[in-house]
Amino acid sequence: MKTTEQVQKLAAEALGTFILVMLGCGAAIATKADVVATGFAFGITVVIGIYAFGRISGGHFNPAVTVGAAIGGRFAWKQVPAYVITQVLAAIAAALVLFVIVQGIPGFDTSHNMGQNGYGDYSSVHLAWWAAFLVELIITAVFVTIILGVTDERNEHPALAPLAIGFTLAAIHFVAIPLTGTSVNPARSIGPALFAGGDNIVQLWLFILAPLAGGTAAGLLYPLLFGYATEPLAGSGLRFGARAAVPGAVPGYGAPDALQQQWNQEDGVEAVGLVGGAGAGATGAGNAGVGSAGEDDAASTTARMQTSPTDPAAQPRIVQDGWEWDYAAQQWKPLQEAPPEGDPLA
Amino acid sequence: MKTTEQVQKLAAEALGTFILVMLGCGAAIATKADVVATGFAFGITVVIGIYAFGRISGGHFNPAVTVGAAIGGRFAWKQVPAYVITQVLAAIAAALVLFVIVQGIPGFDTSHNMGQNGYGDYSSVHLAWWAAFLVELIITAVFVTIILGVTDERNEHPALAPLAIGFTLAAIHFVAIPLTGTSVNPARSIGPALFAGGDNIVQLWLFILAPLAGGTAAGLLYPLLFGYATEPLAGSGLRFGARAAVPGAVPGYGAPDALQQQWNQEDGVEAVGLVGGAGAGATGAGNAGVGSAGEDDAASTTARMQTSPTDPAAQPRIVQDGWEWDYAAQQWKPLQEAPPEGDPLA
Amino acid sequence: MKTTEQVQKLAAEALGTFILVMLGCGAAIATKADVVATGFAFGITVVIGIYAFGRISGGHFNPAVTVGAAIGGRFAWKQVPAYVITQVLAAIAAALVLFVIVQGIPGFDTSHNMGQNGYGDYSSVHLAWWAAFLVELIITAVFVTIILGVTDERNEHPALAPLAIGFTLAAIHFVAIPLTGTSVNPARSIGPALFAGGDNIVQLWLFILAPLAGGTAAGLLYPLLFGYATEPLAGSGLRFGARAAVPGAVPGYGAPDALQQQWNQEDGVEAVGLVGGAGAGATGAGNAGVGSAGEDDAASTTARMQTSPTDPAAQPRIVQDGWEWDYAAQQWKPLQEAPPEGDPLA
Amino acid sequence: MKTTEQVQKLAAEALGTFILVMLGCGAAIATKADVVATGFAFGITVVIGIYAFGRISGGHFNPAVTVGAAIGGRFAWKQVPAYVITQVLAAIAAALVLFVIVQGIPGFDTSHNMGQNGYGDYSSVHLAWWAAFLVELIITAVFVTIILGVTDERNEHPALAPLAIGFTLAAIHFVAIPLTGTSVNPARSIGPALFAGGDNIVQLWLFILAPLAGGTAAGLLYPLLFGYATEPLAGSGLRFGARAAVPGAVPGYGAPDALQQQWNQEDGVEAVGLVGGAGAGATGAGNAGVGSAGEDDAASTTARMQTSPTDPAAQPRIVQDGWEWDYAAQQWKPLQEAPPEGDPLA
Repeated sequence: MKTTEQVQKLAAEALGTFILVMLGCGAAIATKADVVATGFAFGITVVIGIYAFGRISGGHFNPAVTVGAAIGGRFAWKQVPAYVITQVLAAIAAALVLFVIVQGIPGFDTSHNMGQNGYGDYSSVHLAWWAAFLVELIITAVFVTIILGVTDERNEHPALAPLAIGFTLAAIHFVAIPLTGTSVNPARSIGPALFAGGDNIVQLWLFILAPLAGGTAAGLLYPLLFGYATEPLAGSGLRFGARAAVPGAVPGYGAPDALQQQWNQEDGVEAVGLVGGAGAGATGAGNAGVGSAGEDDAASTTARMQTSPTDPAAQPRIVQDGWEWDYAAQQWKPLQEAPPEGDPLA
Repeated sequence: MKTTEQVQKLAAEALGTFILVMLGCGAAIATKADVVATGFAFGITVVIGIYAFGRISGGHFNPAVTVGAAIGGRFAWKQVPAYVITQVLAAIAAALVLFVIVQGIPGFDTSHNMGQNGYGDYSSVHLAWWAAFLVELIITAVFVTIILGVTDERNEHPALAPLAIGFTLAAIHFVAIPLTGTSVNPARSIGPALFAGGDNIVQLWLFILAPLAGGTAAGLLYPLLFGYATEPLAGSGLRFGARAAVPGAVPGYGAPDALQQQWNQEDGVEAVGLVGGAGAGATGAGNAGVGSAGEDDAASTTARMQTSPTDPAAQPRIVQDGWEWDYAAQQWKPLQEAPPEGDPLA
Repeated sequence: MKTTEQVQKLAAEALGTFILVMLGCGAAIATKADVVATGFAFGITVVIGIYAFGRISGGHFNPAVTVGAAIGGRFAWKQVPAYVITQVLAAIAAALVLFVIVQGIPGFDTSHNMGQNGYGDYSSVHLAWWAAFLVELIITAVFVTIILGVTDERNEHPALAPLAIGFTLAAIHFVAIPLTGTSVNPARSIGPALFAGGDNIVQLWLFILAPLAGGTAAGLLYPLLFGYATEPLAGSGLRFGARAAVPGAVPGYGAPDALQQQWNQEDGVEAVGLVGGAGAGATGAGNAGVGSAGEDDAASTTARMQTSPTDPAAQPRIVQDGWEWDYAAQQWKPLQEAPPEGDPLA
Repeated sequence: MKTTEQVQKLAAEALGTFILVMLGCGAAIATKADVVATGFAFGITVVIGIYAFGRISGGHFNPAVTVGAAIGGRFAWKQVPAYVITQVLAAIAAALVLFVIVQGIPGFDTSHNMGQNGYGDYSSVHLAWWAAFLVELIITAVFVTIILGVTDERNEHPALAPLAIGFTLAAIHFVAIPLTGTSVNPARSIGPALFAGGDNIVQLWLFILAPLAGGTAAGLLYPLLFGYATEPLAGSGLRFGARAAVPGAVPGYGAPDALQQQWNQEDGVEAVGLVGGAGAGATGAGNAGVGSAGEDDAASTTARMQTSPTDPAAQPRIVQDGWEWDYAAQQWKPLQEAPPEGDPLA
């Protein structure tokens, strides 16, 4: 990966997390944690952050999401530390800005009043620590499961994925603001706690561990139930050093958009992809590809989308939504995966 | 249907229903049934559930929707029991999780306080049972009518269907939370009632029967008013064992997306579709198909999309939004359905 | 127009208006006119009504919208009476259902408490009649202006139009619920007023005239400022019996979707379109259209999209978002309208 | 630019800003600044304004956005004055309408009660001026950063950009309504202040300077972090009189939609684009272009999208979402930018 690209990814995560904490915790402070306003403020920050920056970094803004993505085979472990550190620092910066702003409110007491999370005496319903842990674990698991679902390459409407992700966060807040203040995000918890005072810092362990556990659970559960759209990334999931899998479009689902690529990225993709493309290169009238020339591993994946390489009049396959245009019959037919070699156009 | 696919469908229904009850009833408990927060919590859970899992199971999460889909010709009766049982069990599991969590709130009394539905003394406005029945019947009919409308294959924007469905549920809650707590979903009612206590269990009959009646009404009404995009599925509607209809793309509306396919699914679709495709085959330079002639009924449906199979330079029809590209005139023209045989390109 | 189609259009208007009044006024009654819940309830009913039924009838659900569309050149006057009567009857039916339901609430008094509109003593801020008239006129003009804008065929994202229309109605309610209860819709006002009692019926004149005046203003203003995407429909605007204009795709904006077609419909469109299509029909290898054969008026409009009719290898123009694919240069170029005759491919 | 086009742009800005202030400040007045209702009213007005008018003017409705766009290289400085003047006049007109309407409310006092912004004694939490300045600067910077992000031509889902922009404004209001009333928009502040009275007019300096500073910061920051999709416009950014850059589609991201074009517009685009198109012309059967060789700078940009100009069977590149269809290999491959000259089809 180029340095510029890496810097842009971290800048995207920093901006997105800053906006999340600045507007989310800011709304909690300004509205005295009005459930609807605060819940939508948090939810909307994620919607807009992913629409603006998701094409660059995937739009995690949350260590539990980053870890869940890594466990789930969507994100390489070696990128996790830089993402998490960036998220935490950006959250602290946002909380610092809020701390400075509230100094301008006469008589404002920042103790336990910075949009922080809490349990026991620092929960508005005095929720016991074990119940708080359970709440945060489950709602983070729900959050990351939805994220893995809507960013799955088999999902046909990636344009709506950011909306679904942010709305999930809003709904989660409608449940958990009265219980724990709603973390589901260790970075979001660390930032305000540092300025809210001693006991809130002591309680941080729960809002770090429970979301990470929830994200991990989702990262394990989702592929277990629904399989992988493409092979897990190299160095993700439970394989920390495996060689690179070859990502590519999922047959029948069109080319992945930028957000889906972020959720299936890896360092070697450009190079490997080019080798595969070159390996299948061809010349000639029409577009007579030879296709079978690629011997590397890439070919085995990409071959799934090849059609009749020896037919000079071959047209590109038109695949949409699980249906394929049948040139011979001039009609749509259900998509068949992996047509037998030598059986062009099924 | 393969077993894996069936397991994934039921897992999708289980997760979606669990999230619906966990976050919806959870918000009702945590916010003391704040109308806006609770309504949006329920609505958003359906939005996100369908975006994440709709491509797998259709995203019913509700026995009244499943029954309405079956009555309406969109879902096979033989799949109904597994869906409904899964939905009810998932709702009970979610209510159990909420029951455990609220044990962590000092002094919390779960009697009639689990986000359950009620009428008479258990309605906040003491709504009479017959009015509660009428409310639930009508709002469920509205809900299922909208679902059948936005998942209709003639609908051109399936990407927005999940948003429309979930928003419908939110609006319904803005009306009925003060009246009955809003069921429209027997599974969502059964789960919390089991933990809310005796009288709420006694009242469950209404929140099972009225939503099912409303879903049935919508399933009958929608096709009566607006017809079918494709023929009703085998074993749906009032035909419990009829032979398979042949699903396919609706001429003029593009290939169905995964959600639309879920709402028009059947077991035999792959096989039948392939036969049909072959039946309308053609030969000729340019798109050398080999399909042999098929005489079965499938051809009569699929033939609607045929174009000039004997024209060597025939191009695929470009059909969009009820308009078709006219190659000869080089302009869009309104789509004609079922051009007369032997009259290619109209 | 076929009778079936007309019945479906009126059924769509009836269902959409019924849902609008049932859920909108229902939320006003149930939440005691909570601004956020009631505003979103009204807004969402329009969002979902248009997603479900907009492809059939255009999704007016409102006489002021129907009249504004007719004035604005989008809807034929001769269809207006059936639409308006249907909307009013459906609104009355919904109000009747609400009236029956509230009989189930012990002690509920329906006088001035049915979600009706009012001014003076029947406005919660005692707004004077002239100010109420001004409010209703302006917000209806805003509503219909936005509708005409987002359904304009030059708008590239018709999939989002229903969301924008419904959200507009929600925002309007956030302003006007405390002022007049928010009509912008004579049908929505008539329904509940009949059950709310005498003075509310007396005040109906304002909630009929002001919205109609606002819709008329918008219908005049929008095309004055921004022109027409296509020529106004026959028998719309200020021409009650003019001969049919020839609708068609706007060059550079792709084929209209079903909603855009509803907003530019007319009875003769199929026939005229077929004549135009046939007039430009052609046969031959490749797709060598002759194109210039059409002498009727249709040709003058549709000729804008013709390309090099004498070039045997001519490809269809690929036009997207105001850009056109330049086959010669193999790149996108800004779309030119109306290329000079005899200058193919610019 | 034609005069008609300029008039339409200013009409679009005028209508959009009028609706923003009319409904946004109207909701603030009518609901006594209820945070959720007022925040969504402001947010929705921007959503609907951009869906309806964004294709015409870009949908700024805000001098801070206009200046931020100019600083960020998206908008020519010479167009700024007309936009800003139009926005301010439209905001004053909307405030005047609100002022007239509230005369119809018995006993309504317009002093400091017109939805205006304020600090110190005119902030509901008595926020100090320096903190108000900081709040407005930061939230405007967030607003404009998101706008620049979602209107970036590298963004693949421009259909959702208006929703993201308006939701951003809603979230910002959830934070800042209790603090300053939320400006982020000098025009929106000037309008109501003129009718709210003396001290509110005195405080206007802050709500003009801070949003402009925030918009400027975003305009500098965004391209610094993420670069330009296309070269900055002539006469934008820090170059007030530079010669025209050549806008065009970003390779790999499809043709820009109308909103993206508004955000990358300039006067000379049609003419320059045509020269550039001709400059990259090609000859050959199949798509017989006649373009003569162009030597100007335009060619260097547009050449990035050329493919095998000497191949008679060349097909247009099919580029989607950062992937390109490889005709030879019949599969998708990751998009390569700037293929080496003389190496067609990579």
